Amino acid sequence: MFSSEISSRASKVVSVYRAENRKLVTAESCTGGLIAAALTDIPGSSAVLERGFVTYSLDAKVEVLGVMPDVLAEYGAVSARVAEDMAQGALEFSRADVAISATGIAGPEGGSAENPTGTVYFGLATRDNFLIHYKCVFPGDREAVRMHAVGEALKLLLSITKHG
Amino acid sequence: MFSSEISSRASKVVSVYRAENRKLVTAESCTGGLIAAALTDIPGSSAVLERGFVTYSLDAKVEVLGVMPDVLAEYGAVSARVAEDMAQGALEFSRADVAISATGIAGPEGGSAENPTGTVYFGLATRDNFLIHYKCVFPGDREAVRMHAVGEALKLLLSITKHG
Repeated sequence: MFSSEISSRASKVVSVYRAENRKLVTAESCTGGLIAAALTDIPGSSAVLERGFVTYSLDAKVEVLGVMPDVLAEYGAVSARVAEDMAQGALEFSRADVAISATGIAGPEGGSAENPTGTVYFGLATRDNFLIHYKCVFPGDREAVRMHAVGEALKLLLSITKHG
Repeated sequence: MFSSEISSRASKVVSVYRAENRKLVTAESCTGGLIAAALTDIPGSSAVLERGFVTYSLDAKVEVLGVMPDVLAEYGAVSARVAEDMAQGALEFSRADVAISATGIAGPEGGSAENPTGTVYFGLATRDNFLIHYKCVFPGDREAVRMHAVGEALKLLLSITKHG
């Protein structure tokens, strides 16, 4: 069901993180579970994906990941700051070593001047306090945007490894 | 990326739950985020999917969903009892009205005489103390088993609605 590009990237994430003995946690908003699904499509992924959170609602971002309501109000749910806080919260509420988050506007509705449809912010956090955020604006419809986002998240996960 | 059968079922879940003003939470082990991904593929699903948990590890089942370690030890992670407890835990740790869970052996490894590859237990719990568990053994490879499981979970969600 995933493209060969996504499958091969997910497979590489699983093998590289396994080799480096690092575990992953996902915190997904617009991708709604797809990053976890792409990883768990790979046999042996249970050695790498420790857990995952699909925090679609604002309540879930606050209650599951500890994102502060003030931060959501000030920056908006689709923002670099919230992507970072989601990743840091996912680390806090898991036993993983690396957290990846995605929050964005998959469309068709919900776009704005600041965040047009296709905008996705990614966050990546590690136990040794490495923190990245990253913004993309992807073309295409809802499915295309979500799939682009999965591919980008996997690329980001590989980019911080020694062997990726 | 999902089959037309799964897409149309997911679309029906979103429209029926929206009409009945009921929110959903997912608690996924072997499906690894795919049930949430199928639902969030549908525009407007944010009105229905409140949050989701991918509890791949035993620790995650205990820490995120409150499954008791004793229960995991006695029944095993792939069991009707754990499917029920995952669904009840997901309700407890969300604001949703209905929880669906899946735990199973997607393969290629991990099968046993009691739970051959393809075995998936589903749990469904509602706020008014309705509780179901349900076992299936699906044919095919890892991807086929996971997709069968997504389709079955959506069917189960529809089966308890007035309009499904």
